[in-house]
Amino acid sequence: MAASSEVHAPLLIGVDWGGSNLRAYLLDAGGTVLERRAAPLAATGIPDGRHMQISEDIIGDWRARNLPVLVCGMAGARNGWHEVPYAQGPANAATLAAGLVEPVAGIWVVPGVRCARDDGGADVMRGEETQVIGALALDPSRVDACVICPGTHSKWVDVHGGAIACFRSYVTGELFAIISEAWRRVMGAHTAQPEADAGAFRRGVRIGASTPLANALFTLRAGYATRTLPQADMHEYLSGLLIGSEIAACRDATDGPGPSLLIGAPELAARYVEAFATLDLPTPRALDAQACVARGLLQVWNARPSP
Amino acid sequence: MAASSEVHAPLLIGVDWGGSNLRAYLLDAGGTVLERRAAPLAATGIPDGRHMQISEDIIGDWRARNLPVLVCGMAGARNGWHEVPYAQGPANAATLAAGLVEPVAGIWVVPGVRCARDDGGADVMRGEETQVIGALALDPSRVDACVICPGTHSKWVDVHGGAIACFRSYVTGELFAIISEAWRRVMGAHTAQPEADAGAFRRGVRIGASTPLANALFTLRAGYATRTLPQADMHEYLSGLLIGSEIAACRDATDGPGPSLLIGAPELAARYVEAFATLDLPTPRALDAQACVARGLLQVWNARPSP
Repeated sequence: MAASSEVHAPLLIGVDWGGSNLRAYLLDAGGTVLERRAAPLAATGIPDGRHMQISEDIIGDWRARNLPVLVCGMAGARNGWHEVPYAQGPANAATLAAGLVEPVAGIWVVPGVRCARDDGGADVMRGEETQVIGALALDPSRVDACVICPGTHSKWVDVHGGAIACFRSYVTGELFAIISEAWRRVMGAHTAQPEADAGAFRRGVRIGASTPLANALFTLRAGYATRTLPQADMHEYLSGLLIGSEIAACRDATDGPGPSLLIGAPELAARYVEAFATLDLPTPRALDAQACVARGLLQVWNARPSP
Repeated sequence: MAASSEVHAPLLIGVDWGGSNLRAYLLDAGGTVLERRAAPLAATGIPDGRHMQISEDIIGDWRARNLPVLVCGMAGARNGWHEVPYAQGPANAATLAAGLVEPVAGIWVVPGVRCARDDGGADVMRGEETQVIGALALDPSRVDACVICPGTHSKWVDVHGGAIACFRSYVTGELFAIISEAWRRVMGAHTAQPEADAGAFRRGVRIGASTPLANALFTLRAGYATRTLPQADMHEYLSGLLIGSEIAACRDATDGPGPSLLIGAPELAARYVEAFATLDLPTPRALDAQACVARGLLQVWNARPSP
């Protein structure tokens, strides 16, 4: 990723350590990713002590160059590497920088963000706050926006004045994973079905958007029982049900112009774009999640209060 | 269950063989259960041939008395004992009797019921049709009613003129099981928590009834992350979220007076009754599911066309 015409001195090691993967970025002062590494290792549910060892295995040679490390994601969660208190929204890069914790010399962890729910409860994020801060830096026109971060626990984030104001989480990706596993005998073992009908996802989106979720999910079982939904289509159909349900829930909850940015891996972002089109809704601009998180880590690092 | 003052001659062996349990009833002509047996054996996902062996193990001695056997439930499903085509709603006892199939001499299987969905798809049931027919026999005033059969795949059944007209299924119980398992590290291993706060279920009901389900489910994770939901309360809270969501979905979908009958095991029925009260909705009358299915099997048997 480094431009060849000039020398980029590394400034920061950025790490996005979530519930499934560790991704590390060697960053220069302009946010260029000089080098990247990844491992399919979750930050949660592993023994104390293992985090430091994993970190050294993956970025030890970068650390040996005396570069600071900034970690975001579930590494800062309860049951993660080192629990960092949530920053209360509204939160911008300076808010996050003010909440950094340094559990090991030279390694700082970014706080997640917490916001209040209308019903008196709270919603929380860890990792998406850094993606959103990065997205706003990559597209500075969006000081007021609704940003979607789809995934295991999808987030719909309201940004006001360049700060994360409030957000709503949906367990969309997690339901896909656990239902696919629980209904494996009906759906088949393989999530990717090359022979799936191209319309299966869109049919799922429409049903999911118009039907309460627990009822929409049963249509897959009924399609199996009545032989009207081929097994090859079932994963695409389930994905459509869940994404359609999520989009409709947010469409009904917000009265603004709809989301303007979508931060995700390209394959997942493409699904959401197709779902928005299926529902005749405006399509948000898609940004790559890795580019956003790398940029967000730099933004937070640069926003540290002067010593 | 037999009254001691008179001799009750057995007339029929009724079997309710579902996705989790086999329950067998020795019935007399008045519907009295003379004897009952049960085994935690699913009708689906077991090898061909095993069904007959299991059946003989459990009711072989009753069969030796030359009594007919009538089976309802998932035994008649694809992947069950012997697939029986669905009866199309509206369906009453005579409709079901006309669709009986006799895969083995002396053993008949009751068809499930299929109804059309507004979106062009179908909904299906296997077993609940017999419960509903039994409930209507036990409470003959209900020729027009909404009947709830809560469970793995809860059914909300509209009855018109004493026949099952249409219905909607919700994967409520199944989501409880698979989410409890997937979130075991957060929720703990034990579903029953004697020390749970009595209000946890009701709080879940209120959140579930007022929030899109995939968002409501995340409140459990947020409650864990922020330490505002004790682990001992989590299963009750999750149960409330799912049941509250189901009731609200149906409340919003129907404009009638609400459900008037509730067919379930006593513990599950009590949860629904508490959820209706929490939402200030009229409480349906609860009937025991085993009593309903036993009576329903007799009703179907007696409705056979004359030879």
